[in-house]
Amino acid sequence: MSERIEIYDVTLRDGAQGPRIKFSSDDQLRIVAELDAFGVSYVEGGQPGSNPKAAELFARARDLDLKHAKMAAFGSTRHSKSAVEDDANIAALLEAETEVVTIFAKSSPTQVANVLRIDLDQNLTIIEESVAYLTAQGRRVFLDAEHFFDGYGEDSGYALAALEAAWRAGAEVLVLCDTNGGWVPWQIAEVTRAVRGKLPDAPLGIHVHNDSGCAVANTLSAVSAGATHVQGTINGYGERTGNANLSSVIPNLQLKMGLPVVEPEQLARLTHLSHLVAELANMTPRDSDPFVGRDAFTHKGGMHADAVKKLKTSYEHIVPELVGNRTHISVSEMSGRSSLLQKAAEFGMALDRDAPETKQVLQRVKELENEGYEFEGADASLELLLLKARGQHRSFFTLHGFRVSVERRDADSSTLAEATVKLELPNGDRMHTAAEGNGPVDALNNALRKALETTYPELCAVHLEDYKVRILDAQAATRAKTRVLIESSDGDDSWDTVGVSENIITASYIALLDSIEYKLLRTRGYED
Amino acid sequence: MSERIEIYDVTLRDGAQGPRIKFSSDDQLRIVAELDAFGVSYVEGGQPGSNPKAAELFARARDLDLKHAKMAAFGSTRHSKSAVEDDANIAALLEAETEVVTIFAKSSPTQVANVLRIDLDQNLTIIEESVAYLTAQGRRVFLDAEHFFDGYGEDSGYALAALEAAWRAGAEVLVLCDTNGGWVPWQIAEVTRAVRGKLPDAPLGIHVHNDSGCAVANTLSAVSAGATHVQGTINGYGERTGNANLSSVIPNLQLKMGLPVVEPEQLARLTHLSHLVAELANMTPRDSDPFVGRDAFTHKGGMHADAVKKLKTSYEHIVPELVGNRTHISVSEMSGRSSLLQKAAEFGMALDRDAPETKQVLQRVKELENEGYEFEGADASLELLLLKARGQHRSFFTLHGFRVSVERRDADSSTLAEATVKLELPNGDRMHTAAEGNGPVDALNNALRKALETTYPELCAVHLEDYKVRILDAQAATRAKTRVLIESSDGDDSWDTVGVSENIITASYIALLDSIEYKLLRTRGYED
Repeated sequence: MSERIEIYDVTLRDGAQGPRIKFSSDDQLRIVAELDAFGVSYVEGGQPGSNPKAAELFARARDLDLKHAKMAAFGSTRHSKSAVEDDANIAALLEAETEVVTIFAKSSPTQVANVLRIDLDQNLTIIEESVAYLTAQGRRVFLDAEHFFDGYGEDSGYALAALEAAWRAGAEVLVLCDTNGGWVPWQIAEVTRAVRGKLPDAPLGIHVHNDSGCAVANTLSAVSAGATHVQGTINGYGERTGNANLSSVIPNLQLKMGLPVVEPEQLARLTHLSHLVAELANMTPRDSDPFVGRDAFTHKGGMHADAVKKLKTSYEHIVPELVGNRTHISVSEMSGRSSLLQKAAEFGMALDRDAPETKQVLQRVKELENEGYEFEGADASLELLLLKARGQHRSFFTLHGFRVSVERRDADSSTLAEATVKLELPNGDRMHTAAEGNGPVDALNNALRKALETTYPELCAVHLEDYKVRILDAQAATRAKTRVLIESSDGDDSWDTVGVSENIITASYIALLDSIEYKLLRTRGYED
Repeated sequence: MSERIEIYDVTLRDGAQGPRIKFSSDDQLRIVAELDAFGVSYVEGGQPGSNPKAAELFARARDLDLKHAKMAAFGSTRHSKSAVEDDANIAALLEAETEVVTIFAKSSPTQVANVLRIDLDQNLTIIEESVAYLTAQGRRVFLDAEHFFDGYGEDSGYALAALEAAWRAGAEVLVLCDTNGGWVPWQIAEVTRAVRGKLPDAPLGIHVHNDSGCAVANTLSAVSAGATHVQGTINGYGERTGNANLSSVIPNLQLKMGLPVVEPEQLARLTHLSHLVAELANMTPRDSDPFVGRDAFTHKGGMHADAVKKLKTSYEHIVPELVGNRTHISVSEMSGRSSLLQKAAEFGMALDRDAPETKQVLQRVKELENEGYEFEGADASLELLLLKARGQHRSFFTLHGFRVSVERRDADSSTLAEATVKLELPNGDRMHTAAEGNGPVDALNNALRKALETTYPELCAVHLEDYKVRILDAQAATRAKTRVLIESSDGDDSWDTVGVSENIITASYIALLDSIEYKLLRTRGYED
């Protein structure tokens, strides 16, 4: 097990088949470059025979100066009715001009009989011919044995025969696929070990889906049983429940199993890589994701935070910085002075444990939390609070009022939302603006921006990334308090702010205001 | 391995510690009842010694008529400086009056030395005394051995001694915890097997966190090595990366490992249970979740969908209906006919499988779901839809418009919310009312009531019990769609309705309207 494990990324093929995931051609190129920098061995670009975008990617990727990764084109073995040299898919694979070609083949008798609807022997011939032909054209050929574990369970002899056909014909890696994703770790290990015994010289790969919720563990188990080639996607994107999540698999291989995969400085890019791919896929990053999630090393105040302070390893299985993540102490009701100090340090502020300002901020946080605020997900609002307590703050405008109205003329007509804002700028100018929106908060946001963007043009780059509403004490029903959480971004950076009020519009206004102030304090500082 | 596996649910304790998760007292009771119906053996209600809400839950849960589940209170062993009979936490555990008490204890020498800061022997004495005392008070005591796997790796003798101390003192189950969540399956299996060998008579439990992304597999591995008691949370909610996800663990145990856990008809409630808990936790259900996710059995058109048509098992590892889920062929296809028929039967309506009205309702449900509706938590809205399709509906008023405004005069003044409503009653009377409220929705609700209560006095008894807001497609920020869920009650009965719109006010109006119509249809029928 001391061999280097090679990572074969399928984010751009399997990952892109995930529901609601779409990468533009530019996104694809950027991901290829990032995966290369991160240190994966192979990047599967797609299936050129069935997807013209994949063919375009291969053409454009040829101009990339990849340091480490090789591009791989993906496609099926020849069609049962074509000669291999006339097969359109095989031709498309060759036209991709990649060093590596991965072809998928059936290894389960049921699949061959019911889906391909050909003889079992014919399938073996097709595999052998396809691999041999591609090898003869100078390609390194990897074989994805689809439904391998199902096939092995059905008829281990036939499943092995499919692998042997490819191996005889010159395939370089034999990839065992759990296409249905239904297997559990000890079964995966057992079968991998058995194949290892039958084909002792063939490098084995593993490609699993997450339908039983065990894809990461199944991948690790296959490696522990002798696989040296690992396929998966960043963040586990993929059809149905997704593929093996490389953002978990890679740190487990390297940090838990002690197997060399990438360089330590590359591993430290993992959190960045995961978030970037999420961003490009237009998927919200899952905060609870292992290793790379925003909450992966978050400790609520109180007992756990205390224990973490006493002994770092109390609730952290690895040093978060190894994967580019970090410890967060969330400031919440339970939290005391020490978590606030730690948080201030995160913001780069040295807060004195016994200073009056510390006491004052703690008092203020406690008051706000009693009102329903929670700073757990709103670092920017907390930082503003700290800055204000230290006097490092200034007013960018004075509100003289706002008004939001929502109107519907009759049962069937659409609803109109309009907002007006009246405010005074530091130079004495009074702005009075009006705007429409898709809802009251959108209208208010638009009117505020209209009033401020001429004076503070940097706000033009700011947009709202995420908007969350939580009703507190929901049982008070429409009289309950509302907490609004807003995530803003200026393209380079993102920040979270919070507002609480019985009135959802006021709560949204408070969070919008914090977002604007936070941005302006960062670009302009607190002194004029 | 033919023993029945007992499920110990910690959603209300560990789950509720997850970032941004909060359950109201009513939510907690509803979850207890649902877990009971689903067939879990134990429901951990919380830590009464540190959380007054948990104490309240135990008091209220005593009135529930649980068929299967036992309530368990959770807390620590006695403090090192208190006598066990004077310990405040132990007293709180007894006051919870649960049949089962679960106490957590340290089993890792490093933890004892650095976090508890007491002697190793003293820790063993504390465990033994605490268990013995609670047992003497007539409690069934389960021991959660915190950091057990870390402790076992450090000093297996000491980790075992901690278990033995509890076992000697009468603990009924010894639960091995991977508190840091950093272990991988074969290690978990190996340690569990070793403990099994040392303590052959003690029932062993498993409680793991998901920090390595292997919590489900780790749980299954422990069971394969002899554990018979399984802890976890619905949807894997919990601190950091969460706990073992019971929504994956349970079907794996039952369908993959062939171990009896719950009855088949209970297992078929799994998807519903998962979505209900997500809804109450105000968390977006993860579409890619194994077994219960909306995409778990979704096949995009083309090759896969074709293969699925030819051979159901091509891309489905289990029959989705076994867990209450189903196959989706296109990206978003809604409720199958059979679940709609089932639901109609629940409402006491006999719906003909092939009647045009059935087709029509299915079509309408599909359209609404594409718009972002979800009827999972809104039975009353679904029933209204069915009634309308059968013509069993009438109009109680015609809306001629509404208007809601929110106004703030300056930065410090309070915000005023006012609504006006214009509508026509069946007798031709036109009502035009105005009302204030604590927020725009409250004002709208008040104005609607004012217009209707003279004609329909039964509405006076109706009040809103709960109000939930979910932003769909949150990345569209304030332009995103909003789903509002309202629970209404008339004192005797309660019902849930839903509304979706880009505008939160409109979404709320739709849900309010359904609530009012539902009540009036029930009191007055659909014929005048």
